[in-house]
Amino acid sequence: MRILINMSYNGKDFHGFQHQPGERTVQGEIEAILSEMHKTFTRIHPASRTDRGVHALDQYIHFDTELNIEPTKWAYILNSRLPDDIYIKSSAEVSEDFHVRYAKSKKTYRYKMYTSVPDPFKNGLAVHIDKNLDINKMNNAARQFIGTHDFTTFSSAKAVIENKVRHIYRCDVETNDDTIELVITGSGFLYNMVRIIVAYLIEVGSGARKDETKELLEATDRTRIPRTAPAAGLYLEEIDYGW
Amino acid sequence: MRILINMSYNGKDFHGFQHQPGERTVQGEIEAILSEMHKTFTRIHPASRTDRGVHALDQYIHFDTELNIEPTKWAYILNSRLPDDIYIKSSAEVSEDFHVRYAKSKKTYRYKMYTSVPDPFKNGLAVHIDKNLDINKMNNAARQFIGTHDFTTFSSAKAVIENKVRHIYRCDVETNDDTIELVITGSGFLYNMVRIIVAYLIEVGSGARKDETKELLEATDRTRIPRTAPAAGLYLEEIDYGW
Repeated sequence: MRILINMSYNGKDFHGFQHQPGERTVQGEIEAILSEMHKTFTRIHPASRTDRGVHALDQYIHFDTELNIEPTKWAYILNSRLPDDIYIKSSAEVSEDFHVRYAKSKKTYRYKMYTSVPDPFKNGLAVHIDKNLDINKMNNAARQFIGTHDFTTFSSAKAVIENKVRHIYRCDVETNDDTIELVITGSGFLYNMVRIIVAYLIEVGSGARKDETKELLEATDRTRIPRTAPAAGLYLEEIDYGW
Repeated sequence: MRILINMSYNGKDFHGFQHQPGERTVQGEIEAILSEMHKTFTRIHPASRTDRGVHALDQYIHFDTELNIEPTKWAYILNSRLPDDIYIKSSAEVSEDFHVRYAKSKKTYRYKMYTSVPDPFKNGLAVHIDKNLDINKMNNAARQFIGTHDFTTFSSAKAVIENKVRHIYRCDVETNDDTIELVITGSGFLYNMVRIIVAYLIEVGSGARKDETKELLEATDRTRIPRTAPAAGLYLEEIDYGW
């Protein structure tokens, strides 16, 4: 039986989602519990392998089990054993040909930054920018990402995927109390793509560089944007499988 | 020259304010920097020694220095070297007979709890209560703390102070988004007093015990309230020296 889990986690104290020997990871915490319950190593598969320090408000994972446990009860069982920085929102049975990673979806990421004085309570949860940011300029530059583009300029050189064309449905910069937030929805994202887009938008907003979104997309040249914004501001906000 | 520092800190990853060998403490972080700068051990004095896990939005400390540094510059110097979970809001010179702890003040504490589903992003910053709470009942019980009372029933047995009479100016339970917050202002607080009051108010709000604030104050008997609410919800919100 394949179990689908919907969950959130605060990435601050994790070394990312993916298992790494000797490090505290989201995958490691969950697989340890499942493997003990199944008395054999039990692998989980995530919709998105978030990096070290990145948060998730709406992550999906699946795993296969032969244990005779009511599918909706897995949420309760896991929550009773997981640390407080992971929360399982729900669990359900899915078809054995469903795969959280390969099923078609729209993903939404949110990136939180702020320019007021440094706030110890935002530490690890939003990124402090020590410059004034012009939100209109950022928004004008952001909106031009909407549509279908080759995102080579805005992806890590480490991305090994050949096809770097992605479709962006939404790309807005909005304010929320004292945070400035980029919200971006796409058919998929390349490695570090959101954080590189944010690094570019911060430069546009602070006046360090002009709005050249179109030209940069056409250039398909990663060296044009050498920076990557810190992980702490990034949230996997929603995965929409179209259900 | 005596320097007064106004600061905030996120207590989540500290073993409390007070220096403890081998533990990460607020005092330890600051004294390490000051002692290195002064080339001799330099002690700081806090207005309140917050416990492990307790937060401060408005803590004061003072220290004495013979370094020829403009008093307002200490905030900048310390922020440039302190970790991100401590923030120095300002620094100024004060008279050498001013002592942050013994100067008369009103202190305000806030305690944050919530009853919605567990939220990994509130972990360490607000306390999840797994019961429904009747805020009106809590408020009625809370308001009776206002005035001058002997708080023996509501203080830790570890409190060695003889005089347990304190004056409470304000004691309200209010809601703020999805948190329920106790705000209490007093002439001073005994050890664990706010957390014991909160433990009692949670029992009143959940229906586990009736409102008996007056009777409990008169009883001057700590055994009547065996619980202490967790540290993570507690914030030192304001210290008012009457300036």
